[in-house]
Amino acid sequence: MNVELISIGEELLSGFILNGNAAYIGRVLDEINIGVDYISTVGDMVDIIVDALETAANRAAVIIATGGLGPTSDDVTLKAAAQFFNRKLVFHDEVMKSITKKFKIRGKSMPSENRKQAELPEGALVIPNSIGTAPGVRFKYKGSVFFFLPGVPSEMQEMMRKEVLPFLENNYPAQTGKQKIIRTTGISESEVASQAEEVRKQFPQICIAYLPQVSGVQIKLKVRESTPEKAEMIISQAEEQLREKLGNYIYGRGNESMEEVVAQLLFAKKLTIAVAESCTGGLISHKLTNIPGSSAYFKRGFITYSNTAKMELLGVAEKTLEKYGAVSSETAAEMAIGVRRVSRTDIGLSATGIAGPGGGTREKPVGLVYLGCSLKDYIITEKYRFFRDRIWNKERTAVYGLDLLRRVLSGKPDARN
Amino acid sequence: MNVELISIGEELLSGFILNGNAAYIGRVLDEINIGVDYISTVGDMVDIIVDALETAANRAAVIIATGGLGPTSDDVTLKAAAQFFNRKLVFHDEVMKSITKKFKIRGKSMPSENRKQAELPEGALVIPNSIGTAPGVRFKYKGSVFFFLPGVPSEMQEMMRKEVLPFLENNYPAQTGKQKIIRTTGISESEVASQAEEVRKQFPQICIAYLPQVSGVQIKLKVRESTPEKAEMIISQAEEQLREKLGNYIYGRGNESMEEVVAQLLFAKKLTIAVAESCTGGLISHKLTNIPGSSAYFKRGFITYSNTAKMELLGVAEKTLEKYGAVSSETAAEMAIGVRRVSRTDIGLSATGIAGPGGGTREKPVGLVYLGCSLKDYIITEKYRFFRDRIWNKERTAVYGLDLLRRVLSGKPDARN
Repeated sequence: MNVELISIGEELLSGFILNGNAAYIGRVLDEINIGVDYISTVGDMVDIIVDALETAANRAAVIIATGGLGPTSDDVTLKAAAQFFNRKLVFHDEVMKSITKKFKIRGKSMPSENRKQAELPEGALVIPNSIGTAPGVRFKYKGSVFFFLPGVPSEMQEMMRKEVLPFLENNYPAQTGKQKIIRTTGISESEVASQAEEVRKQFPQICIAYLPQVSGVQIKLKVRESTPEKAEMIISQAEEQLREKLGNYIYGRGNESMEEVVAQLLFAKKLTIAVAESCTGGLISHKLTNIPGSSAYFKRGFITYSNTAKMELLGVAEKTLEKYGAVSSETAAEMAIGVRRVSRTDIGLSATGIAGPGGGTREKPVGLVYLGCSLKDYIITEKYRFFRDRIWNKERTAVYGLDLLRRVLSGKPDARN
Repeated sequence: MNVELISIGEELLSGFILNGNAAYIGRVLDEINIGVDYISTVGDMVDIIVDALETAANRAAVIIATGGLGPTSDDVTLKAAAQFFNRKLVFHDEVMKSITKKFKIRGKSMPSENRKQAELPEGALVIPNSIGTAPGVRFKYKGSVFFFLPGVPSEMQEMMRKEVLPFLENNYPAQTGKQKIIRTTGISESEVASQAEEVRKQFPQICIAYLPQVSGVQIKLKVRESTPEKAEMIISQAEEQLREKLGNYIYGRGNESMEEVVAQLLFAKKLTIAVAESCTGGLISHKLTNIPGSSAYFKRGFITYSNTAKMELLGVAEKTLEKYGAVSSETAAEMAIGVRRVSRTDIGLSATGIAGPGGGTREKPVGLVYLGCSLKDYIITEKYRFFRDRIWNKERTAVYGLDLLRRVLSGKPDARN
């Protein structure tokens, strides 16, 4: 089965917004082993949308279009659809009622422009919108199935989950593929790839893709086999071999973020943490508190940019700062120990470094970073050097700091570096 | 002139990566008043790429393709291009030399796969790559100009800036349009739109687009006129009227972030700041320290999740917490005053609230937030209610906190809310 996406909106063409909708749809289809062949992005013009629908209809069994269902005069997707299907736009009473009701609930009267959202191509199947006002549409035409979904991400995503995915799973033969995403950090893409290619030699039917990000390199394994069992068996064997090779560089799987992994460890071990940050400026604490319920483990964070703050708040010794400097293994250790002591937590985590672009010297260049982690009477520090801009250096330091914490919590702090 | 983009890569179709390259190209072209008509996203398959090139060539004068120039067997863009242009791939000695040199500098020997990157369609113009190994290509064919650029964003962006944009500006008649982006926060999209539509009544030739984000609503004004002077005059008049209507809801323009605007005010006034965060968990401090040189104004940050931390570190009174609770105007005020006092800074900024999903009550629901800003003997607090998930509520609170600071610094704290 061939699937195409049509993303509709001038602001996608001019880069005012990123096409997150196409990526979302591609991802959820990929998860059920349906590949997308084309994505066409076009503006809000009837002729061009008709043209895109025609091109897609000639190639694909399923076409999913997003955007242009709003109430304003710019929104012409259904007008174009009606023209392409050679149908009239007809007014749907029950759709109108549901739209009016939504305005009532918010205590507002419906603007007259929204009336347009109840006009759908004759014969269309209505896909309800529980969040916003624009209904979605399903339409069969010349052997292809067309879906028209709103451009608002939350509304589009709901319709994908509740209508489009179940429809595809019911109406098209099950695809018997499997995929897994493995998340690594602290290792380069080329090192990851050279290990993974070794594994592929034994499983040549597996596709491997790499996604290097500030959080590390993600690896996607993918296989299509004649039965789901066979696919599962092969991908599991390949994953196991890859895990053996990459060991503690792997921190998670699927959509798991580093902070989710760390939070699970902290919850499970009932440990509390306090954080002392210099160069990351609060980012480590921000990540740790992104997790619902994080107040169970996260107690206090200190952002100590100046030496005075490091001494006053964390008890870093003046001598240490004088002798080794604020960006040093010794200072990172005293920050981690100090923040744990003053916060009366199980763990103290620290980061000190030079985020740049200014502040670097020959001995201590921009991108030099020290991390510290103190757990009871145990203290570990690590040194890194990053090579990009301030934002990247902050993000990378925060992820590496959380990864140090992860390795300490899992009892294998030294497994790398 | 018609321009089309072709984005090449399986991982774009499966949503493993977002199509940031197309958005970047759309944006920089839009800035010089060149519109993109279509973006086609296709996989790494010769036939499909040839098909996409053919379709684009029939419609557009300029085609910019990205991706598929890497050294692996998946990368087939230039093979497809050569087939479409009916040319051979020829080996370029000087390109090979430059690639080999790059590996030498990094102390590595060149893998044999990279040899492929020196094979370009016969007659192609080479676009140098100062960052990575894959050169770009320019090719004229049947009246259209084709650019092939790498998928690595930094490499693609360099080639756009150094080669593609100058080429387009030199070879195509100057477009005489103008655009401006105005950034607002604290006002809804529909309120912004109703004000902006008033302005459009007087300037019907202006296009207006709205981009609602967690940081607020961005407004893009755009006009094309016969002369640049005329375009500038009209857009400036419209902008002025819009600024009058939206007043202090406007915090910036163009690509300016809220933290950049606030940093400029702090630099200019030579003021120092300390931050006390509860629900934002470090995000306000993170944003304030994203600006190069921020150590000039940012002194300390405290993340005080627990009542004990608020009392011990910031001197919030136990009575206040008992009587009004941690999420209250009174606590926000004491946090802001306290953090300023203990940090000996000019300004104290605070945020306390319930980020969710847990922790809400009937009186104090999830999304309830109080902000405080203390400057010398002046203290102001604000109350907000947000309605989305934890991450959104944190982001929104941080932006609104920085916006409160902005309004205090600009001497008009009460101009809204």
